[in-house]
This record gives sequence, structure tokens and C-alpha cells, in this order.
Amino acid sequence: MDFVGMTMTQKILAAHAGLEKVEAGQLIEAELDLVLGNDITSPVAIHEMEKMKAEGVFHKDKIALVMDHFIPNKDIKSAENCKCVREFAARHEITNYFDVGEMGIEHALLPESGLTVAGDAIIGADSHTCTYGALGAFSTGVGSTDMAAAMVTGKAWFKVPSAIRINLIGKPSKWVSGKDVILHLIGKIGVDGALYKSLEFTGEGVKNLSMDDRFTIANMAIEAGAKNGIFPVDEKTEEYMKEHSKRPYKRYEPDEDAVYDEEYTIDLSKLRPTVAFPHLPSNTKTIDEIQDDVIIQQSVIGSCTNGRIDDLRCAAQILKNRKVKKGVRCIIIPATQKIYLQALEEGLLKIFIEAGAVVSTPTCGPCLGGYMGILAEGERCISTTNRNFVGRMGHVKSEVYLASPAVAAASAITGKISSPEELGE
Amino acid sequence: MDFVGMTMTQKILAAHAGLEKVEAGQLIEAELDLVLGNDITSPVAIHEMEKMKAEGVFHKDKIALVMDHFIPNKDIKSAENCKCVREFAARHEITNYFDVGEMGIEHALLPESGLTVAGDAIIGADSHTCTYGALGAFSTGVGSTDMAAAMVTGKAWFKVPSAIRINLIGKPSKWVSGKDVILHLIGKIGVDGALYKSLEFTGEGVKNLSMDDRFTIANMAIEAGAKNGIFPVDEKTEEYMKEHSKRPYKRYEPDEDAVYDEEYTIDLSKLRPTVAFPHLPSNTKTIDEIQDDVIIQQSVIGSCTNGRIDDLRCAAQILKNRKVKKGVRCIIIPATQKIYLQALEEGLLKIFIEAGAVVSTPTCGPCLGGYMGILAEGERCISTTNRNFVGRMGHVKSEVYLASPAVAAASAITGKISSPEELGE
Repeated sequence: MDFVGMTMTQKILAAHAGLEKVEAGQLIEAELDLVLGNDITSPVAIHEMEKMKAEGVFHKDKIALVMDHFIPNKDIKSAENCKCVREFAARHEITNYFDVGEMGIEHALLPESGLTVAGDAIIGADSHTCTYGALGAFSTGVGSTDMAAAMVTGKAWFKVPSAIRINLIGKPSKWVSGKDVILHLIGKIGVDGALYKSLEFTGEGVKNLSMDDRFTIANMAIEAGAKNGIFPVDEKTEEYMKEHSKRPYKRYEPDEDAVYDEEYTIDLSKLRPTVAFPHLPSNTKTIDEIQDDVIIQQSVIGSCTNGRIDDLRCAAQILKNRKVKKGVRCIIIPATQKIYLQALEEGLLKIFIEAGAVVSTPTCGPCLGGYMGILAEGERCISTTNRNFVGRMGHVKSEVYLASPAVAAASAITGKISSPEELGE
Repeated sequence: MDFVGMTMTQKILAAHAGLEKVEAGQLIEAELDLVLGNDITSPVAIHEMEKMKAEGVFHKDKIALVMDHFIPNKDIKSAENCKCVREFAARHEITNYFDVGEMGIEHALLPESGLTVAGDAIIGADSHTCTYGALGAFSTGVGSTDMAAAMVTGKAWFKVPSAIRINLIGKPSKWVSGKDVILHLIGKIGVDGALYKSLEFTGEGVKNLSMDDRFTIANMAIEAGAKNGIFPVDEKTEEYMKEHSKRPYKRYEPDEDAVYDEEYTIDLSKLRPTVAFPHLPSNTKTIDEIQDDVIIQQSVIGSCTNGRIDDLRCAAQILKNRKVKKGVRCIIIPATQKIYLQALEEGLLKIFIEAGAVVSTPTCGPCLGGYMGILAEGERCISTTNRNFVGRMGHVKSEVYLASPAVAAASAITGKISSPEELGE
């Protein structure tokens, strides 16, 4: 075969398949560094494993089971689901089982716990598993059956993806963050714009994005249909990994002659706070393009997309010494126990409560219509989460608007979709 | 009629009925100082009011509508319920409408907000409305239809209750609190021991109970079947009301020749930490009477019964520098936003998180099997809530053990029902 140069993703996959080279479209079997499941998907996978009559798991340290979607349990079914996973974890002595009190939303928790590092190949039975691409890992969401097979074999089959290269230049202005970058991109290429491809971010603009910005961007790669999103490893990545992990990591760079299906350049300095209107993440408008007032009844700040410390700091900066508008429910959800504690120690939680927001224990809760902020008919919510499909957060006639923590916090104050600039920030 | 002396309760009812004297069994119509409903009961009452074709409410300042059971909304139905009440409150300009961010569990919120004071006559469409008896008010739970009628007329019919007198003497020891007092009493007289009667607390022991102790005791009067529970007004009561309310209050004392159906004396100094075993609040054992280990999977500290600042302080004292036992979910729920903020400022929340507990935004949630800690089959929970009926917190084959915050916190550490004394406290 006549190979061309490889992308970052392809290099990681090649290394995990024990191959010198791979190319787009090739079917490979890759060794996995981590297999992830949550309280919704793991019970299905466990059931599948039982059907396979598998004797055990491939590696008790390389499986992460995170109870996060509906915990503390929202109903009997979710309680039974958690119980099933808890017992499985005990039976197989799974090291990385996370339950109430030690947990967090999986995609914030795993990097924070040092379980994901650059160069890893990771699958998870959750669509936003692509988050770890922020660290320079290959990670992607799979179904529960794939998770079951991977828990037994430690391997997974992949069709090697081709890639779209996103060249980032410039520096974002004050109220522009990772969420605006990814919403802008999805608005540009559409929800199927990167179908089964890698979104490979690169360029001198990368250094101007914090790790939390990068997690947000990689997290939503799936919302453009991407197989994965991935960032190069730089000083910020290394600093993050040094702080959080003891695992060795490997830095992959694309070959100079790597081939990309498409290439886009985004000038970060030209981006504006961006909002995805109902009912698709690609239905974006910049804050300046919103003409009529969009009155909201709820503002949610949290989720695997935007529940990290940078997100909470940003929200606190806007909510400080202000009051949530009468008639608006502002629900803030730190993504992990550690982030909760840090926000507490930095005085952010105090700011939130004094502003009239409520602070929930970590949970995916409202993002997927689980609990902790479900919408009634006709209600509108601005949310830092990742999907605004019909009925995603409640009633089929409710509406979700996706935005950054800055916009969600400012909107909680004004009662309509607003930029912090409208508050004189 | 030949009247005998009146009890505290009878005096309040007489005053609100415009009568000089009333006696047990008499039917009276009393003016109300406050009519209360929550997000479960108010929608039913509002619907009833609509059927009555009532023009408006009797007094926009004397109705309290508290969204607390399932908020932030746990599902579409609860969202629709809150929306119904929210719109009703706006339409009738109800002053005391409490929603996400400004709220708390009704029976902690109303005294804290100064809406309930000594001498008041209050009804609420929630069985634990009897809580305000701690302040020397007459308050009792009613159905949603009574609430509807009362929202229109400002009045309610009552059959004047007879009373049981509970003479409190002595001072409770370190780990004995209001919860132990009321569990002890219910254990003694049974869940129907005070059916349609007043439980009137009196005696020199009252002064040794904090206001939060008294709220807990009055709160659970209904669990002995009582119409109401009531405490005399003393310096602590006056201090509490001065801090929280601007409303004038009235202090009622029983007549010297008041007649009581029964009289019990409780020596507080002799009480021990007490636990109500499944499936009745009367199924009590002292901590010393528990012979076999009762392994628990969850510990809930909160609710209208025990989610006040004293309760959280007590739990923090035990959880400080300790870790929640692996396999136990410890869920702590401050009863109001104000209590949450105070607990945060006093460093209690930090202690909870560091111990591996989770802190929820105020909600009734798990107490009535709503959300935020529902039990799977075979699971056991120690809980500071008020009811341990079959299936109350989840699966019909789960079990709830009622106890004080001290016992619930100690049990979270040991993983089995324990007294703080077992930890060397």
C-alpha cells in the first residue's frame, strides 16, 4: 500500500493497533487504555457481558465506571441501575468505580483523576467521551455492546477516520471562550459536518485557549458528527497532566504530509459570544445577530461541557453583587466534587447563593432531561450544556438555547439572552 | 355551657373564632393568619378554586406558596405543577411565592421568613404544617380542598381538639436532640397515640431545648396522629421571633384548670439516641437496644424535620476530619437557601465535602421518594426525615431508619447504625 502521512488521530490508532501506518477507511483492532461507562450505559453493557458468559474483565484498573447521570438516584430505576453497576464493580474489583461523594460528571472527572492522558486510546459508552481529545488522546463514544466487548477483551475495532483540520489563530476577546469556538464551528459546518471524521485542532491560536476551553471544544466535537476531536500537546497540556496524573503520556504530532479532507481557519479574535438556538447545536447566532428579546425562565450552568472551574469562575465574575432576575431559575452544577470544593474555597458558591442561584451536587441531571431543572411546556432555558434537541430538557414544547457560562450567567441577570457586555462588563 | 379551662391550642382557636371560650369537640370557624401550599398540593387547590369560580384570594399577603418538594423540577409533571402555581401567584399578586433560588423547605422557610409567629392560626396543605407549634402557634395540615376554600375565605372549620400534656423535665445529654425526644414519645404512645388531639409540651425541660429542637418535635407531632403540637413561648422563642419577624405575636398560656386527656412526663436527661426501625415511626429502639449490626447504604441528613442549622452543625461536628464509609452515600440537604449560605460561611459545607458527603440544593427530594437519593431493592437508609413507611424512599423492599443528625452522621462514618459515642465523641 502507498501510505500518505498520518494525522494525530491516525498515529495514536496505529500505535494502539501495533501497526507502523494506518490510513483513513482501514479497519483496525486497537488496544485500549481505558473503557468507560456510566449509570445509564453500564448496566446494559454488564447485561451483555453476562450473555457472553465472559469470565472476567481484561484489566481491573483500565475500566472506569462513573455514576453521574441520575445520582443521587432520581428514581427506583436509576437506583437499581446504580446497584447493578456497584455490585459488578465489587465483583470484578474495578479500581475506578465512582459513586456518590467521590464522583463527578465522567468527562470532567476522568481527566481530573488522571485516568486520561495524551496518546491514550479510550472508548466510553457515552457520546461525549470525545472530551479527552483536549489532552491529545484519541477518545470516542461507543454503544453499550462495544463497551461490553471492550471490558472483556481490552480492544475495539475502528474504521480509521479521515480528518478535518481546524487552524486556530488569534486570541479570543474577554467574553469569548471555548464554547463560542465550538458553537461557531458547528454553526459553520453543521451537525453532520464532520461525520465520522476527526476534528484536529491546530495553529498558534491553541495556546490562547485554556485547558478548560479545550475540554469544552473537544467535548462537542460529536455535535458536528465527528468521531473525535483532538488538540496538540503543548505546555498547558503538560502542566495539566503533571498536576493530575502519574501515568506516562505520549505526544503525537501529525505528519507534515498528513492529508486532510478539509481545512478551516478560525480567527479567535474575531469570534463573538455565540448562541445555538432551538433545536440544533448548528442553529447559531452571535449575540449581535439576536434581534428580538429572547425571554428565558431558566439558566443552567454546568455539565460535562461547561461545569469546570474556569466556567464557574466566569459565571461568578458576572453574578457577583448582582441578583438573578425574578422569575428566572438559575441552577449551577459544579461538574465534580473536587470542583465543588474548589469553588467553595474560592468563594464562588457564596457569590452564587447570594445572587439567588442554586448550587446542585454534581450530576448530569437537567442536560438530558433527567432531573434537577426539567422544563414545562413553553419554557425557555439558556444552558451551557451540549444539546438542544426537541424535548431534550423536558416538554417537547420547551426550548433550549446553548451558550457559554458568561452568556448563561448574564442572561440569568437580565432575564433574556444577553452578553455580559450588556451589564457593563 | 359549663366551660372548663382551656389549653394553649384552645385559647388560640377561641381567639381566632371570636369566642371567649371553646371546648374540645366544639365545631368552630376560625380566621387564619396564613394559608400554605407547596408544589404538590397547590396545583390541586388552585384547580378546586377554579371550580368554585372564586373571584380572588382573601389576602395576597396571607398565602404562602412554596415550591419545595420536587424543585429544581425533577420531571415534566413537576415542572407543569410549578408553572401552574407560578402563574396563579402572579395573577393574584401573592406576596409570599417562593421559587428556585429564594426558597427552602416550607416548614423551615416560613419561620425563618418571619411569616409564622406565636398565637397564629395557620393551615397548610402539607401534613407537617404542625411545625410552627414550636413558636407557640396553632398550625395544622389540611387537604388541598380545605386549602382552596381558605385561600378564598381566609377561614377554616375546626373541631376543637382535646389535648395530651407532655411534661418535659431535665436536660438532654450531649448527643440527644429534639429528634430523640419526639421519636421516644411516638414510640411510647404510638402513631395514633394523639389522634386528633393537641400535643402540648410544657415543663422546666423546655428551656433546655433549642428552637431547632422544638421545630423538630412539633414537626413530628403528626406522626403520633396529633392535630397539632405546641410549645409555650419563652425567652428563646421571643429571641427567635425578634430575629426573624416583624409581625406582632401573642403569647398564650393554658388555663390553670385546663383539662388534659392524658399527661406524660419525659425526663430529657434519661433519653438516649433513638432510632425508628422500619416501617413505622413508633417502632423505636434506643441505640443501646440495637443488638445486631444494621448495615446501611445511605444516610440522608435534611428535610423539614432536621435540615436546620443546628442539625448541620451537629452533623459537621461528627463528620469533621472523618470519611464517609466506602459504600455509603451520605446526602446532606440544607433546608433553605439561607441555611445553605450560613452552613457555607461557617465552614460546614467544606467539612461535608471533604468527608465525602454530597450537598444538595434545598429540596424535600428523597424524604417522600421524590428524587435525590431513591433506594433500590434491599437497600437501607438512615435518615433524619419523618416517615419510614413501606416504600417511602423508593423500592417497596427498601428500608428507612429514622434518627437524629448525630446518629445519621455517625452511621455514615461506620456504615452501620451507630451513636457518635462509638466514634469516641
